[in-house]
Amino acid sequence: MEMANKAEALKRLSYIEGHLSGIRRMVDEERYCVDILKQTFAVRKAIEKLEAMLLEGHLHTCVPEGIKDGRESQVIQELVELYNLADK
Amino acid sequence: MEMANKAEALKRLSYIEGHLSGIRRMVDEERYCVDILKQTFAVRKAIEKLEAMLLEGHLHTCVPEGIKDGRESQVIQELVELYNLADK
Amino acid sequence: MEMANKAEALKRLSYIEGHLSGIRRMVDEERYCVDILKQTFAVRKAIEKLEAMLLEGHLHTCVPEGIKDGRESQVIQELVELYNLADK
Amino acid sequence: MEMANKAEALKRLSYIEGHLSGIRRMVDEERYCVDILKQTFAVRKAIEKLEAMLLEGHLHTCVPEGIKDGRESQVIQELVELYNLADK
Repeated sequence: MEMANKAEALKRLSYIEGHLSGIRRMVDEERYCVDILKQTFAVRKAIEKLEAMLLEGHLHTCVPEGIKDGRESQVIQELVELYNLADK
Repeated sequence: MEMANKAEALKRLSYIEGHLSGIRRMVDEERYCVDILKQTFAVRKAIEKLEAMLLEGHLHTCVPEGIKDGRESQVIQELVELYNLADK
Repeated sequence: MEMANKAEALKRLSYIEGHLSGIRRMVDEERYCVDILKQTFAVRKAIEKLEAMLLEGHLHTCVPEGIKDGRESQVIQELVELYNLADK
Repeated sequence: MEMANKAEALKRLSYIEGHLSGIRRMVDEERYCVDILKQTFAVRKAIEKLEAMLLEGHLHTCVPEGIKDGRESQVIQELVELYNLADK
């Protein structure tokens, strides 16, 4: 992972962690389920954005490097797996 | 939220928080993006399971109560919004 | 299903069917996979919009009616199942 | 697209088209929304499987070829776009 991406990923993780402790507080105070669900959806979107960022970085760096270095079948197999995992 | 659900929700939140700090450590150690992505997918699934549990509780308790109490349009509107938020 | 919704659902189905036969033609002509995938994503979105429309209709009519008619457990169980099917 | 994949894709498209005309009939006969929704979910899954098949073919053929042929930035940009389209 490159430095710029690392700082950005850590920033996004902090945001997600903060958001989750807000959700923990809401559950603890027995707040209305609908309000809690709206917050969990927001956290899920934040994780999806982190994933999109990580995947984009991976596609731009490790994938072309791997293919040029002769590790094509490994790199492609990983992308197939990631797609299947992401979707299910 | 009912007591049984609350304990279960807090347990799931602890699991998600623990998992996220593992991911933070992986990012910090600049581990391979594919391995990090597999972990973020697992966290996302764990959040989806928490949401399914919260929604199921909501459907079994607040929704029928609200409709019988004459708050039908509010309760239904909330479900429509939740569905739209969940999907996008 | 109410009349207005029925006409709208049939219109959306015609659009989806037309779109699909365009995709069949692209596959038949061995067009570039990326271009075909962009079209299948568009069809998937169109189906999701049809589903959102059907679900919204269901929530506004059958759900409150069912609960007032004493079929609460059936109606709620169906919503739980729909949510689980939609998500997986 | 390779021949084996083409035949498989056309077979899946026929299945999806047949399924959709079944849904059209259900809407036309004003069947219960829940039953219609279960069928649209099944169609959506069938489209997702077709997409997974097309994407896997693309990853195994066009992506490594494109990168070796010096069209790396195009091929990678397409994958980033596909991921973003698939997810939103």
